Amino acid sequence: MTRQNVRGLEVVLADGTVVRSLNKLIKNNTGYDWPQLFIGAEGTLGVVTRVVLALHPPVRSRQTALCAIRDFDAALAILRFLEEEIPGRLLAFEAMWPDFYGFATRTAGVSAPLPGDAPLYLLVETSLPDQENLEAPLAVLLERGLLHDAVLAKSEEERRKLWAIREVPAEYARHFRGGSVKFDVGIPLGHMGEAVGTLRDLIDRSWPEATAVFYGHVADSNLHLVLGRLDGAVLPQHEIEDAVYGIVSRFEGSVSAEHGIGRRTKAYLPLSRSPDELGLMRLIKGAIDPLGLLNPGKVL
Amino acid sequence: MTRQNVRGLEVVLADGTVVRSLNKLIKNNTGYDWPQLFIGAEGTLGVVTRVVLALHPPVRSRQTALCAIRDFDAALAILRFLEEEIPGRLLAFEAMWPDFYGFATRTAGVSAPLPGDAPLYLLVETSLPDQENLEAPLAVLLERGLLHDAVLAKSEEERRKLWAIREVPAEYARHFRGGSVKFDVGIPLGHMGEAVGTLRDLIDRSWPEATAVFYGHVADSNLHLVLGRLDGAVLPQHEIEDAVYGIVSRFEGSVSAEHGIGRRTKAYLPLSRSPDELGLMRLIKGAIDPLGLLNPGKVL
Repeated sequence: MTRQNVRGLEVVLADGTVVRSLNKLIKNNTGYDWPQLFIGAEGTLGVVTRVVLALHPPVRSRQTALCAIRDFDAALAILRFLEEEIPGRLLAFEAMWPDFYGFATRTAGVSAPLPGDAPLYLLVETSLPDQENLEAPLAVLLERGLLHDAVLAKSEEERRKLWAIREVPAEYARHFRGGSVKFDVGIPLGHMGEAVGTLRDLIDRSWPEATAVFYGHVADSNLHLVLGRLDGAVLPQHEIEDAVYGIVSRFEGSVSAEHGIGRRTKAYLPLSRSPDELGLMRLIKGAIDPLGLLNPGKVL
Repeated sequence: MTRQNVRGLEVVLADGTVVRSLNKLIKNNTGYDWPQLFIGAEGTLGVVTRVVLALHPPVRSRQTALCAIRDFDAALAILRFLEEEIPGRLLAFEAMWPDFYGFATRTAGVSAPLPGDAPLYLLVETSLPDQENLEAPLAVLLERGLLHDAVLAKSEEERRKLWAIREVPAEYARHFRGGSVKFDVGIPLGHMGEAVGTLRDLIDRSWPEATAVFYGHVADSNLHLVLGRLDGAVLPQHEIEDAVYGIVSRFEGSVSAEHGIGRRTKAYLPLSRSPDELGLMRLIKGAIDPLGLLNPGKVL
């Protein structure tokens, strides 16, 4: 998470005051940690003009595997196993549901290193010293029945090909000529498998003509869903948003995991935040930007 | 840092409103992350009544070493090396200056597993699968000349004995009958070695009769300094605080790293925070607790 790498901020407030905390310390308990409030506020509290970021050593070696697994519970078990066995080494842990894998490998034509009939795919990338260090834990996972199949990239070229599957969202515009309806939601990990099933049923029932693909940054409890029509027709965006955000809210999810609240998602904010929370946010906004000058119409 | 493990909060505001965000998500970008503001606010903005904490798997195995090294730059090089070689495995990385080591092993009588003449000592604890996994990187560090000497605990009993040195602050009250002057400051890691030298010179010059011990949680950029007199006399607390916090401020440090700002440190807050920062904090306090009912006299 970016928040954890932000050590200090300089912001300009609505009245022109420049407030500066170019802190480099890891622990600093001197009054309110006000920069936290400006992170993710979409510029509605102040304009960020400088940032102190924590840096991490460059990754010296990457191992990348595409895995076919039985369900989302297996994904969680694999995540926990890798976090315990090789802590601090996981660079990516991406789940791709079969609709997504099918869209990438059949519709978008990316080469398919594994058959398309698995219930769930994972793209796992690590920063271990060498290839063998990932082969060993994958072998344990195969033995325990948590992995059905796996392909380990043997070269940078193979690694790029595995990532091309996951990066297929860049192709949406070409295939969904009528536009797409996109979601960036947070779902508690314990509910994510079930939530995807519920959303899939809803879509199959209500918009059977839509192509709907699910993928997620599992380690961040972040799920993406994109709907579009291959025949170029337009989908009913508001109707779909109402239904999808309703289900997300039932699973105690959030209507924005990483992209923040802009004009479009603002209407759904009360699904993720209580009236008292929104009241507190308005109180803070009113105190810091009483004339409502900064990025009006966003967040609140 | 505790902040990174806090996922959700429930707080009661001064007017009795209960604001609740029992969030379990890792990423959640739905408006202002208001719980961040209440973490470390010492109860001056609201009373925390519930907390959602991220849990980590229990540590299955610990390896503990006491190391003698040449200076603080070597401590930083060792920290960087271990963070790269065994990421996610470091449980403790504690620096103890010779005055501290001497107080523990001579004055307080804790057994000394290494001679007392090293310029700096480190207590390193890891959660690797077994002892050999720490022996290997320590051997590399010895070879590179970064470590002068090291003792690895071979049993839980030996491990407790190494920790007894670091935990000697529990003994202060018994030895400093006239009380002690304690500091919990943050110093940017690049300056910490020099800052300790400057503080040591100040103390030797101004209060030569004081016993002054330095130790720090290096991975948190946190330094502790404690002064007391073995003859039971009382030290001039305010004079020492003025001088020490002045030096901390010159090194762009913070007057409180982990304990927060209470009645005693409040006077020194302007050394770590600019007038504009304090103005913003007052604005926030005034908006959320306009009558100043909550924990009056603390922080601001």
